[in-house]
Amino acid sequence: MNVVLIGSGNVATHLGKALKNAGYNVSLVYGRTEKSAKNLAEILSTDYTTDINKIVKHHDLYILAVKDSAIHEVCSFLQLNDKLIIHTSGSTDMDVLKNASSKYGVLWPLQTFSKAKEINFNKIPIFIEGCNKEVVIKLKKMAEQISNKIYETDSEERKIIHLAAVFACNFTNHIYSIAEKILKKNNFSFNILETLIQETAVKALQNSPAKVQTGPAIRKDIETIKNHLDLLQKYDVSFRKIYKEITKGIQTLDNPDK
Amino acid sequence: MNVVLIGSGNVATHLGKALKNAGYNVSLVYGRTEKSAKNLAEILSTDYTTDINKIVKHHDLYILAVKDSAIHEVCSFLQLNDKLIIHTSGSTDMDVLKNASSKYGVLWPLQTFSKAKEINFNKIPIFIEGCNKEVVIKLKKMAEQISNKIYETDSEERKIIHLAAVFACNFTNHIYSIAEKILKKNNFSFNILETLIQETAVKALQNSPAKVQTGPAIRKDIETIKNHLDLLQKYDVSFRKIYKEITKGIQTLDNPDK
Repeated sequence: MNVVLIGSGNVATHLGKALKNAGYNVSLVYGRTEKSAKNLAEILSTDYTTDINKIVKHHDLYILAVKDSAIHEVCSFLQLNDKLIIHTSGSTDMDVLKNASSKYGVLWPLQTFSKAKEINFNKIPIFIEGCNKEVVIKLKKMAEQISNKIYETDSEERKIIHLAAVFACNFTNHIYSIAEKILKKNNFSFNILETLIQETAVKALQNSPAKVQTGPAIRKDIETIKNHLDLLQKYDVSFRKIYKEITKGIQTLDNPDK
Repeated sequence: MNVVLIGSGNVATHLGKALKNAGYNVSLVYGRTEKSAKNLAEILSTDYTTDINKIVKHHDLYILAVKDSAIHEVCSFLQLNDKLIIHTSGSTDMDVLKNASSKYGVLWPLQTFSKAKEINFNKIPIFIEGCNKEVVIKLKKMAEQISNKIYETDSEERKIIHLAAVFACNFTNHIYSIAEKILKKNNFSFNILETLIQETAVKALQNSPAKVQTGPAIRKDIETIKNHLDLLQKYDVSFRKIYKEITKGIQTLDNPDK
């Protein structure tokens, strides 16, 4: 199966590597910039182009792994007739691909990717969707070659999971970032929180986060909360706002008996 | 060294076990309720009492591991003369112990404890403080027998670290809890986020969370953000408020070049 990878960012890089390892032939990489396209093409030992019009139509599969906001625009340059095209986005409707081909689908790997960090694709949940049964079967087969966790979901379900993932990943990371800024300002290393952060994740996943909530908010420890809000006056105003909103949320929604 | 454990909750349980394993003799457990006091006393093969007045003064070390808001009150019942008393709280001043004894200090293990979950104390950072040098040396020696990461910090520094820990642990857990509620309402399991949550923690700890931020907020993907805010109208109003505040925080404070 001949694959064209449209995109040369984090998802394109890791998905390209995983497909190559599974025996797929990535025959062309398209990237907006010479540097990133060339770089990924070298990793995958293949050709590259920065001219979207040079993406020819005789390949078997076109994987659109560009940033969400660019999917629509890139699609408008592609006329693939009945060649299969898929995107890899959690928050984008499948139907946006309709204009590029009559055969389209989605393969969304639920993970946060960085180019520099190797990742084990095996355990990454992959959510697939196809415009018809034949496409679903094809995508399922492909997904099974790179991961053990395949789910078939429609665009609306995928958007819900993407929303939950934004909380669990991007928002959690910003909370870490606040903790880091508080520590740094006082000359402590963020890494003193390592075992705490790891245990918090493990505990939530082994139980239910709402049931294992601890700390001043759930204990309704008004004095400590007041002290924290005082301390936070020295930092960006958003820290206090986030502290207040999450404390309120814990007190009304998290409950050991729920 | 004869130790009295005042408290029978999560911290008392895990610290008691760690000290026992390190060769300390826990000779008495005090708990507010018969059930929890008896339970911990059995685990530590020792005696227990629920009568605070029965805590006699001939022991070497009194560890106050009750909830933060009870420390002051419990202290008022204790008259230990010059016997060493310590508390285990991140957010409480050392000086609150002054009334109970002339020798006092703090030993704060930075971790989220659950009774049912075994924990490796070895890697848990322990923050110590003493009313004088002799106490600091004693506490350092003790801490070194149960952990490899000992820090000497004063009460103000400890409060800052506790504040950062509330973000990294309690608030992160509430963010997980929101993700779980969104998924549950749509019949998905929280566990589909397992690899994402783990990778988010690992990535933040290996780098700096502010530098590895991803997602719609940092990309300023206005359309996806708008869609998420629309979807969130079906949930508790706090979800939208938290979404908005954290998105704003990411856009103003997280930056790959900072």
